[in-house]
Amino acid sequence: MDPTAKKKALRMLSYGLCVATSRDEQGYAAGTINWISQSSFTPPLVMVAIKTDTGLHRAIDSARIFAIHIVGKTQKDLATAFFRGAQASDGKLNGYEIESGETGAPLLVAPPAFFECRVVNEVRGGDHTIFVGEVVNAGVRSDEEALTLRETGFAYGG
Amino acid sequence: MDPTAKKKALRMLSYGLCVATSRDEQGYAAGTINWISQSSFTPPLVMVAIKTDTGLHRAIDSARIFAIHIVGKTQKDLATAFFRGAQASDGKLNGYEIESGETGAPLLVAPPAFFECRVVNEVRGGDHTIFVGEVVNAGVRSDEEALTLRETGFAYGG
Repeated sequence: MDPTAKKKALRMLSYGLCVATSRDEQGYAAGTINWISQSSFTPPLVMVAIKTDTGLHRAIDSARIFAIHIVGKTQKDLATAFFRGAQASDGKLNGYEIESGETGAPLLVAPPAFFECRVVNEVRGGDHTIFVGEVVNAGVRSDEEALTLRETGFAYGG
Repeated sequence: MDPTAKKKALRMLSYGLCVATSRDEQGYAAGTINWISQSSFTPPLVMVAIKTDTGLHRAIDSARIFAIHIVGKTQKDLATAFFRGAQASDGKLNGYEIESGETGAPLLVAPPAFFECRVVNEVRGGDHTIFVGEVVNAGVRSDEEALTLRETGFAYGG
């Protein structure tokens, strides 16, 4: 296989940007992700690939819950703020206001939409684990459109 | 859970459009899909959710191989042509020229990029199966950008 073609072809897959959060006995965990897609209508499932050597992976793996926030068109700063995990202080996460979700995952207030999931399956192997989550709660806070990875100039894939 | 919020939040996930193909002893199979993402760098893996009651699902499930084609910005017609499965005639698939890939899956010549996968894992449950495929071959045929689901006005999710 030509590695340049593999990299280029895989980078042509289209993505949005999301902030994933979770919470286990060690505290909050969070990270900006883009490897996510719905995977079933009934029940409503999503599949998300989380890097294995991260605090976010540790928390989802142990607590079996996570929340996904859609990053809005004007919220590139929010995505950037969650590149390096979670830092809680003054009741905020990386400087952003949160509230507690139904699953116990912290919910960011700024993003236009979110949903909460319970892990129902997973696939290990490779440098990320695929967690399959059933959507158990969702909310829409504004009509702002979603930011796409292509718009940001960032790349994660290939 | 508020079903309207669930639907709206899930539809804010960003997607591209791809045509997936496969081939088993019953012949060619194909379909337009958007529930796909990379899921590992090393080895290079992708996760794709395929509707269980389709010929494409039957073929991938039995042959354990598939090809993914990135639909280009100007190729909405190509995506539409593969909404209803695969029809082979005159050595073409749904009217589009093909060649044989390394895995045996038919490769469409028109799309700007493609990759071929061997199934290494799967998750059943729900109305789609998640197939995890290792990328074993890839090609780039043009510099055309990828078409996004949002640009087409189509929706698949929620």
